[in-house]
Amino acid sequence: MPHSQFIVGVDLGGTNIVVCAMSADGTRQHGLHSEPTRAHEGADAVIGRMAQMVNETINVTMRETGVSRDAFRGVGVGAPGPLDREAGVVLVAPNLGWRNVPLRDRMTELTGLDAAIDNDANCATYGEWWIGAAKGGRNVIGVTIGTGIGGGMIVNGELYHGSSDSAGEIGHTTIDQTGRRCGCGNYGCLEAYASGTAIAERAREALAYDTASILPDLVDGDVSKITAAIVYEAASRGDAVATEVVRDTARFLGTGLANLLNIFNPDVVVIAGGVTQAGEALFGPLRAEIRRRAFKMAVDACRIVPGTLPGTAGVVGAVATFIAQRGAQLSPPLR
Amino acid sequence: MPHSQFIVGVDLGGTNIVVCAMSADGTRQHGLHSEPTRAHEGADAVIGRMAQMVNETINVTMRETGVSRDAFRGVGVGAPGPLDREAGVVLVAPNLGWRNVPLRDRMTELTGLDAAIDNDANCATYGEWWIGAAKGGRNVIGVTIGTGIGGGMIVNGELYHGSSDSAGEIGHTTIDQTGRRCGCGNYGCLEAYASGTAIAERAREALAYDTASILPDLVDGDVSKITAAIVYEAASRGDAVATEVVRDTARFLGTGLANLLNIFNPDVVVIAGGVTQAGEALFGPLRAEIRRRAFKMAVDACRIVPGTLPGTAGVVGAVATFIAQRGAQLSPPLR
Repeated sequence: MPHSQFIVGVDLGGTNIVVCAMSADGTRQHGLHSEPTRAHEGADAVIGRMAQMVNETINVTMRETGVSRDAFRGVGVGAPGPLDREAGVVLVAPNLGWRNVPLRDRMTELTGLDAAIDNDANCATYGEWWIGAAKGGRNVIGVTIGTGIGGGMIVNGELYHGSSDSAGEIGHTTIDQTGRRCGCGNYGCLEAYASGTAIAERAREALAYDTASILPDLVDGDVSKITAAIVYEAASRGDAVATEVVRDTARFLGTGLANLLNIFNPDVVVIAGGVTQAGEALFGPLRAEIRRRAFKMAVDACRIVPGTLPGTAGVVGAVATFIAQRGAQLSPPLR
Repeated sequence: MPHSQFIVGVDLGGTNIVVCAMSADGTRQHGLHSEPTRAHEGADAVIGRMAQMVNETINVTMRETGVSRDAFRGVGVGAPGPLDREAGVVLVAPNLGWRNVPLRDRMTELTGLDAAIDNDANCATYGEWWIGAAKGGRNVIGVTIGTGIGGGMIVNGELYHGSSDSAGEIGHTTIDQTGRRCGCGNYGCLEAYASGTAIAERAREALAYDTASILPDLVDGDVSKITAAIVYEAASRGDAVATEVVRDTARFLGTGLANLLNIFNPDVVVIAGGVTQAGEALFGPLRAEIRRRAFKMAVDACRIVPGTLPGTAGVVGAVATFIAQRGAQLSPPLR
């Protein structure tokens, strides 16, 4: 696809919908904007809003570039999984209250554009690979750490989906088989230790034993308001309790990522989401833990990097996944 | 390659060398035999013995099939890793005492045949995929449980090697980050719980607390002689201590494999090695543990099966890896 062609990307999250248009060669981005998802209004309302946002983005792009509507080849949508890419259906999305929603065909009906869908964590990984921190990687693991922990995998330059579209559930790998209970029902999942939710929870637990911390002050004494971001903030100010929580996070995450290095031997692991705000306080001990636990050959082959597309990796990857699903070779710009 | 062409496979293990010839279509096997490795004699002696075995196998195959020496296209060798496939060099093989041995070129010198090498665990997986229990699989994990735990991965019908030829180190994934010390120096590796060595060790530990067991009788009172095979034997006779050890093994292995299902979403996991002797006493609780820990979509997509090429998966896979490395499409027979 020449670069005078555009694709619209949509990142459908539990909280926000993000939309933008990109040139097919990945060099130009237009009409980036976001709106609240308001999932409680139901699937029809949400999909209607997405279609409206797509049209707004198209209009902005046409104004900014002078291209006509014919230049828009389609819409890629990153949606919470599990989903059936072939059928274009979101099977189950607890955060949205969706079940068996034919998202792809509804988008086409409402926008008149060809559409493709993929898992949001896959899209975020693909976006970072296409034009972000994982550019140039051949075998890439993407880890998105927010409320939960999502994962995506690129094998030989292509998104890997597994045998039933459910590969990459990195958050639900066991690092301690008799460990903390996870939301999935299992014990000792990485997500139960290193998600944003778990980070806040462990901070609250730590405060029960060690009260010499500025954390309570940062939330006006209401520890239920502690978030992962507040933990990073306190750690950056030298708070001992928060620093320990961040260090433990690095240890847990390092164990989970070392497993991935030993299994998958990637050349890039890109970490996205709020956790990257913790900066070197996290990445330093994280790399150390991975070196401790993974084989040298695997460690030497791999760079562990924070994502460089905060907030937009998903929408960029949604564009990329449309291009790839339509059979075009995705060649990152400037590579 | 038409099936009137033959490839010789060599499986180089710490204890034995296994050699056979196979037709390029995988339907015929000739001249299968094995000899002790005798690694203490040094790399030259071992490689010399391998070359001699290759020639014997070629002679037997010529006699049995009437083909001429021209029909033999090359030699595939499965060797302990890590190795550099491109250069044909075994980098480090502690069991053999090898370091930077140019195995591929030495084999070519001594046999006059083109040669290719790959990791032994990769070969075993490839063999089971080509004509064994994983036939028909698209995304396959192979786990070989012996002294240690080796692994191999097939992605979209091709062996996956990772970014520095070190993918598939399944035995060294952490399932309990503060757990048992592993030979690799790490804590809580799957291998430290579920390898043959670890199974025997856990049985000895169990006997310290529970002496009502036939295990000591099976080794004439010398518990240092307990092996994993003896544990399976005792379990099959209803011994409570041994049964518990096997059940625990299933739980540990199930945790490790559930991680692989959630990450990789394979359609087949094939388990090879002595551990398969434990039969349903292992595979029953193993499948149950995987169901408990892995996502339903991943579990439903995957069959967990014992290998069907005991003792020969490696040598069969060595043939397959030669064919694949020479650029030919490997099409399993009868598929």
